[in-house]
Amino acid sequence: MKTINSLTNPQIRQLHKLHNKKYRDQMRKFLIEGYHLIEEAKEQNSLETVLITKEEDKIDGVKNILVSPEIISKLSQTKTPQQIIGVCNFFPEYPITGSRFLLLDDIQDPGNLGTLVRSALGFGIDRVILSPNSVDLYNDKFIRSTQGAIFKVKIIKMDILKAIYQLQNRLPIIGTSLNGRFLSDISPLSSYALVLGNEGQGINPQILNETDFNISIEMSPQLESLNVAIAGSIIMYQLSKRK
Amino acid sequence: MKTINSLTNPQIRQLHKLHNKKYRDQMRKFLIEGYHLIEEAKEQNSLETVLITKEEDKIDGVKNILVSPEIISKLSQTKTPQQIIGVCNFFPEYPITGSRFLLLDDIQDPGNLGTLVRSALGFGIDRVILSPNSVDLYNDKFIRSTQGAIFKVKIIKMDILKAIYQLQNRLPIIGTSLNGRFLSDISPLSSYALVLGNEGQGINPQILNETDFNISIEMSPQLESLNVAIAGSIIMYQLSKRK
Repeated sequence: MKTINSLTNPQIRQLHKLHNKKYRDQMRKFLIEGYHLIEEAKEQNSLETVLITKEEDKIDGVKNILVSPEIISKLSQTKTPQQIIGVCNFFPEYPITGSRFLLLDDIQDPGNLGTLVRSALGFGIDRVILSPNSVDLYNDKFIRSTQGAIFKVKIIKMDILKAIYQLQNRLPIIGTSLNGRFLSDISPLSSYALVLGNEGQGINPQILNETDFNISIEMSPQLESLNVAIAGSIIMYQLSKRK
Repeated sequence: MKTINSLTNPQIRQLHKLHNKKYRDQMRKFLIEGYHLIEEAKEQNSLETVLITKEEDKIDGVKNILVSPEIISKLSQTKTPQQIIGVCNFFPEYPITGSRFLLLDDIQDPGNLGTLVRSALGFGIDRVILSPNSVDLYNDKFIRSTQGAIFKVKIIKMDILKAIYQLQNRLPIIGTSLNGRFLSDISPLSSYALVLGNEGQGINPQILNETDFNISIEMSPQLESLNVAIAGSIIMYQLSKRK
């Protein structure tokens, strides 16, 4: 295998553009880094190519490109990158099937979104539905913070109201509200759709209008609100547990 | 009131040094920004001085300094700062009293620590004990992510083992472990000390050796681990709730 050393190599320049949403959407590919994420991507058949610095890091079943450590550094978003970068294909468009759903209305912080996807995987959510104005599904920081869960949870980007219209009558649509029913009064549910709102504004009133009921997490009046990823994870834990 | 306009004014240069832990520890002061945090700091008597750009923003009971918007921008850590910066005194050294404790062993991410402090306030924790190697208690990002909870939760920086020795025999010391007792089998407790470990390594084995029992959160085997702030918050919710 020949090693690419030039930082201005056209293929490398093309890959570097994948840090930009516009080019990701055009090429329908995104970059990931680190052995752990790459292993998860390979398992889920999302991995298309890897850039490696040593022949022995070769991964079977995908395209391998040998590059210099400088190229890894150029493509990486971390200070001390592991010597591997993966190129993945966009996820397929999953159908809205399953029995447990997490609907996220305009979550803006990639760390919050990543943590929610990780918790969704832990608590048996079948589909995560992201509103079009949420953090980009292929945002680097978001993907890193899912710690690989992004390759196991099926995420759909679509209008939250449209998703609710498809799910209504089939399972309870649950929102969060300061005046909602106390979480500890709610029994675990084998099927549900939990809607969480934006960090600052909460759930859009038009969406809140469509929920079957809303949940409030009992807490000290000294605190105005919990972080959205915390609130969502506590509710998913409570609704999904076996007893 | 005279306005300070010079970015090289000695008082402003001195305050700017407070972004550095070394100088914070020397002067025993730290900076905060935004109306909300400043209001919380004032209520808890932590606020010593405010820098404002308009006379009408004056705050009673503290020292007010009129400065130019350029000085606010110099001292701020945000892109579009609110026109107010506060100078606070270090917190007093609180005694280890109360009935519910959160012990944090080397939490490294300011966002995780901030979220945990926010949840601790929500779930009735009396004291948060931070190990000496954790994120600095006066780190800007940490303080911002507590959203003001830092002025209401009493935080003590001390060796976790020493804290455990003081609390043992008085209340159960609870750790987390993949082989622990399932959280849903544990009844709420009126007093407890919950120990959470570092994001990567978990709880130090020497500390785990001192716990009365450990908790495991039931989740899908597909997920390796929950985010530490999520796991800690779910456990605090469950242990502190009334039924």
